[in-house]
Amino acid sequence: MKTTRIVLASRPTGTPADENFRTETVELESPPPGSALLQTLYLSLDPYMRGRMSDAPSYAPPVEVGATMVGATVSRVLESTDPALSSGDIVLGYGGWQTHSVERVRHLRKLDPAAAPLTTALGVLGMPGFTAYSGLLTIGQPKAGETVVVAAATGPVGATVGQIAKINGARAVGIAGGPRKVELLREHFGFDAAIDHRAPDFAEQLAAATPDGIDVYFENVGGAVLDAVLPRLNKFARIPVCGLVSQYNDSELPPGPDRMGLLMGLILRKSLTLRGFIQTEFLDQFDRFQADMAGWIDAGRVAYLEDVVDGLDHTVEAFRGLLTGKNLGKLVIKVAD
Amino acid sequence: MKTTRIVLASRPTGTPADENFRTETVELESPPPGSALLQTLYLSLDPYMRGRMSDAPSYAPPVEVGATMVGATVSRVLESTDPALSSGDIVLGYGGWQTHSVERVRHLRKLDPAAAPLTTALGVLGMPGFTAYSGLLTIGQPKAGETVVVAAATGPVGATVGQIAKINGARAVGIAGGPRKVELLREHFGFDAAIDHRAPDFAEQLAAATPDGIDVYFENVGGAVLDAVLPRLNKFARIPVCGLVSQYNDSELPPGPDRMGLLMGLILRKSLTLRGFIQTEFLDQFDRFQADMAGWIDAGRVAYLEDVVDGLDHTVEAFRGLLTGKNLGKLVIKVAD
Repeated sequence: MKTTRIVLASRPTGTPADENFRTETVELESPPPGSALLQTLYLSLDPYMRGRMSDAPSYAPPVEVGATMVGATVSRVLESTDPALSSGDIVLGYGGWQTHSVERVRHLRKLDPAAAPLTTALGVLGMPGFTAYSGLLTIGQPKAGETVVVAAATGPVGATVGQIAKINGARAVGIAGGPRKVELLREHFGFDAAIDHRAPDFAEQLAAATPDGIDVYFENVGGAVLDAVLPRLNKFARIPVCGLVSQYNDSELPPGPDRMGLLMGLILRKSLTLRGFIQTEFLDQFDRFQADMAGWIDAGRVAYLEDVVDGLDHTVEAFRGLLTGKNLGKLVIKVAD
Repeated sequence: MKTTRIVLASRPTGTPADENFRTETVELESPPPGSALLQTLYLSLDPYMRGRMSDAPSYAPPVEVGATMVGATVSRVLESTDPALSSGDIVLGYGGWQTHSVERVRHLRKLDPAAAPLTTALGVLGMPGFTAYSGLLTIGQPKAGETVVVAAATGPVGATVGQIAKINGARAVGIAGGPRKVELLREHFGFDAAIDHRAPDFAEQLAAATPDGIDVYFENVGGAVLDAVLPRLNKFARIPVCGLVSQYNDSELPPGPDRMGLLMGLILRKSLTLRGFIQTEFLDQFDRFQADMAGWIDAGRVAYLEDVVDGLDHTVEAFRGLLTGKNLGKLVIKVAD
């Protein structure tokens, strides 16, 4: 069996370019004992992948140059050497940017195609949804009447953060780029206020939308949004730091003045809590998350939105769009039927 | 009854100068019902007072120009209109930079001169000791075998942080300025390692003294010490942010590059916790603190060091020295016998 795969050809500087990747078709090994040969149906594209393309120190090792780009996948089992899986089963795995993969069965989770659309295992019921759930509830701890702000708010993490904030009785303020996304925040996701970060008076709009200040800022973008949020933070505000997508493409620090001490001073004077996290540290909450989230979706309390792009050959272009906000909702590549 | 008091004559820019203060002698009001007329015996000088001289936004309102500088005091009751206190009693209060004061009796805490030296109510058994105790144990949460780093480590907060870290089984690394202080850290306070932040190879010394990285950094200085600490922080490190004395005199931000995003990136990648605090939010722990600390002092597990300067007229000069590290131990002005 052959796989067509996208490998990292060189490390990008700034925005990933086509020449940083190479598509190749190679023969796959036969699945050794305890493994399965899989056909990729859906590939998840997520902002963390930009970090894996870089060899800067991070919480996970980089993808080696020449290796297949990593990523979560929904796949069909073609052949299994482990009795836990049979041909035709659908599984959540980590097959990466390719059409076929061989994976250890104990790393796979069998999905029930009747329970929910398969793509949701990569989004609202998967890692992005769990990132929102665990980070907001464990670190952000929104209380009734408080104000929660999140950016990239039409994305699968941000949209879920806003809706869980509302379920907890908080006021949800969403930030996104462009009028179409802002409308979606209000109409589709039910945010109490929605702001376009591209507006020239963005900071003033944020101030107007947070008349009682900000109690929880779920940080996934950094940059200009963080700058506008900082003066609005209330005493004892909590900031789960989940991502900084606006700076992932930066290859050098921005010019001065140096505001590191300014941030430390705000942390001190406002008794702020900043806490970086990745969802893997909270995996003991995963079963509770799945039960809660499935219930909220069934009850119409959590909506989701997916942006499915057809064809593995559009992966690099789609990923660039993800970093610049061109997609609308959870970005998934449909690799096969 | 007259009081001689030091008032804020103008707001300092940078290091407080003599001309920012004025000494004046005025008539005190007679104590109204529920109040006491007090003679100041000891005045505490603490870094937070620099913030009160400024009208920048902070967690407490600034001292008004023309008003008496604030500060904790140990005083003798000269006259009381409340039966809870009698003439001759010794109390902890907040009389400020002056020889006499009139205070509400319910804001005073009666001290037992036989239980401990009176000055300790301003240091190891008072606000500085409680700051160390509550911030380290509640936010820092040092575990056995972990490494705790603290700067200004001969000061009443830093020295106590290091010793409580050791009581909890952690390794304590202290940072101070100059060889005399470094020796004190090892000999008097029992730190496992002690480093002079003025050494040209300070960052290398810190790295050598923290071979297993840093799990808790109790932040009270900022600046160059923070810069050296950041690359040594372990995943899941905790940073109670208690003070930033190195930047209190700064009137503008330092030149670039802008490292605010760099700090945010570290928080993300290392899953750091930064939490600003002032001890007042933990006052429900105060009784437990006093019991624990008195026990540790009695058992010889916590040592303390005081720097008593004689005479209210040396207050401004002594306070300047506090900001630049000239004092040795908890700085107290002896105002009267």
